[in-house]
Amino acid sequence: MKIENKEYRTIWYDDNVVKIIDQTKLPHQFIIKDLKTVKDIINAIKIMEVRGAPLIGGAAAYGVALAIKENNDPDFIKKSSEDLIQSRPTAINLKWAVDRMMKKLLGVNIDKILETALNEAKEICNEDEKFCKNIGLNGLKIIEEIYDKKKDTVNILTHCNAGWLATINWGTATSPIYHAHKKGIPIHIWVDETRPRNQGANLTSYELNEEKIPNTIIADNTGGILMQRGEVDMCIVGTDRTLSNGDVCNKIGTYLKALAAHDNNVPFYVALPSSTIDWKTKEGKDIPIEERNSKELSHIEGIDEDNKPKKILIYPKKSKVLNLAFDVTPAKYVTGLITEKGICEASSNALNKMFK
Amino acid sequence: MKIENKEYRTIWYDDNVVKIIDQTKLPHQFIIKDLKTVKDIINAIKIMEVRGAPLIGGAAAYGVALAIKENNDPDFIKKSSEDLIQSRPTAINLKWAVDRMMKKLLGVNIDKILETALNEAKEICNEDEKFCKNIGLNGLKIIEEIYDKKKDTVNILTHCNAGWLATINWGTATSPIYHAHKKGIPIHIWVDETRPRNQGANLTSYELNEEKIPNTIIADNTGGILMQRGEVDMCIVGTDRTLSNGDVCNKIGTYLKALAAHDNNVPFYVALPSSTIDWKTKEGKDIPIEERNSKELSHIEGIDEDNKPKKILIYPKKSKVLNLAFDVTPAKYVTGLITEKGICEASSNALNKMFK
Repeated sequence: MKIENKEYRTIWYDDNVVKIIDQTKLPHQFIIKDLKTVKDIINAIKIMEVRGAPLIGGAAAYGVALAIKENNDPDFIKKSSEDLIQSRPTAINLKWAVDRMMKKLLGVNIDKILETALNEAKEICNEDEKFCKNIGLNGLKIIEEIYDKKKDTVNILTHCNAGWLATINWGTATSPIYHAHKKGIPIHIWVDETRPRNQGANLTSYELNEEKIPNTIIADNTGGILMQRGEVDMCIVGTDRTLSNGDVCNKIGTYLKALAAHDNNVPFYVALPSSTIDWKTKEGKDIPIEERNSKELSHIEGIDEDNKPKKILIYPKKSKVLNLAFDVTPAKYVTGLITEKGICEASSNALNKMFK
Repeated sequence: MKIENKEYRTIWYDDNVVKIIDQTKLPHQFIIKDLKTVKDIINAIKIMEVRGAPLIGGAAAYGVALAIKENNDPDFIKKSSEDLIQSRPTAINLKWAVDRMMKKLLGVNIDKILETALNEAKEICNEDEKFCKNIGLNGLKIIEEIYDKKKDTVNILTHCNAGWLATINWGTATSPIYHAHKKGIPIHIWVDETRPRNQGANLTSYELNEEKIPNTIIADNTGGILMQRGEVDMCIVGTDRTLSNGDVCNKIGTYLKALAAHDNNVPFYVALPSSTIDWKTKEGKDIPIEERNSKELSHIEGIDEDNKPKKILIYPKKSKVLNLAFDVTPAKYVTGLITEKGICEASSNALNKMFK
């Protein structure tokens, strides 16, 4: 998608390095950063220079390739792949991408291994882009249906950033939005700020602005009353991990929006590539929920009156803080899953039928 | 209650001026401010140097007295009382307090009118303190019951600040908490940050810290998963206006917490003095919901590394923002109303029985 009218992907390999858009600097600075080693990749995932389940998968795939480039000793590659998987606990695509890389490299001749790894990482990214595009075409149908009935601007609420910045391109939750916009359907997006890291404001609103899609940032507290007032026609969110029973793990606060949607008969959709499905974990409560540094809440970055980046403390100095990064929305509150293969119910039966 | 071990009320008349704690400066600066004219009072209410439904009522009462002090012409007093009522639209105590003052002053001799006004304003404040104390004693019973069953720390979630800083003393939602703490019941408070103005973090956590009550600030998005995990034993919130059918208008986001409490069988209580009841408005959707300046969301204040107050922009410059201040929680999601007279169901019948 576009930034200042130039097309980008979120990650690419060029000039012997992996290039990313440093997402911790958005929206106030647009910086392309070079990652040269697997350690650089792990660090970028940990401090969230790259984030979003599909993009984390793509970055981890390139991480395996950079490890090989650094040292093609099998023990080092193995250890690096394990470190990559450990870099963040919740997004399932991370393990999925690393496992796929390792499987591909099995038995590959040492003089071909780097080339194979780079090709496979690129293939994972290409595939993600294709899947996200298909998610968009499938989700577009839902927006078209609402527009056909309403004959007026379709208001869509989204939480966090499941935008193109969270994937390689198109996004998951935003892909139907971009496709609807390209088709000329009038849409307006309610963007949840998404505390504590404000990815909704910093990333989703930013990328929608760049694509000229009307959007309004709201506090995370606001979605409920908007739905009560009939000002939300549908919700679309992404997911970091969807269980085979249809339970959806996503950015903290998603569950509250799903409850409000349910209470007000607003359709609540989750958009995902099948790489985000966890076929093994049985129940939502068994998903490891990442607890992040409390400073992500107590401190905040922005720009001061001289346009200079500034970080300030916003809480009382003595206060204790808890920072949980995800929650789990039970399948019963999910209207449907928008995948690359089509839209299905959030249930074992429907998921098995579509993917197994 | 205490700040740095000294007892304060939130508003008092001394030395011919009204004194308040400037709540826009908390938690980083504790400043007592003099208000000398009715315009000062109106401004303090508008920019939220004083806030919280009961304290707004007390401040408005003193506003009428300051108007008389400035100019005891009946037209000026009448106009001032109307301006006071217009200063914020949602909290019902504002109109209630001004109406009570005007009724009291009706037919009072001109040479007695200032004294009568000052006495009545003080009486309104004294009464609020007494009501809040009784709310605490009534709510204490619920906390005691939970503790008797659980025999372990009682975890209470609250939203925004319905603390002593929102009233004259004790608070509404916090009064049962303070009484439980004084009785030695082990409690821990989950404090919703409460975007956009962060009154949970800035005021509730601050005042609980000063009273040495264990508390943890969380993002507003977090309450749902904590309830799913069984880490919340009850919720208590305040209200800016409660309808006679039991619908509760309170800080934006309250409704989402009530939904999560309902979904997880967590009791959800609303604490209020009867002055907060609106006997006239029929339905939640008829309550005027204040829309405040979008800069309350896009900009945030804190302190920099040199402990200097600093305001920064945290949103993309191009983004549009909507700032709604309140939402309405339907009565069916409210377990009970904790009032100065006792605890009752959130329904017309129960409210009529208790107050009419």
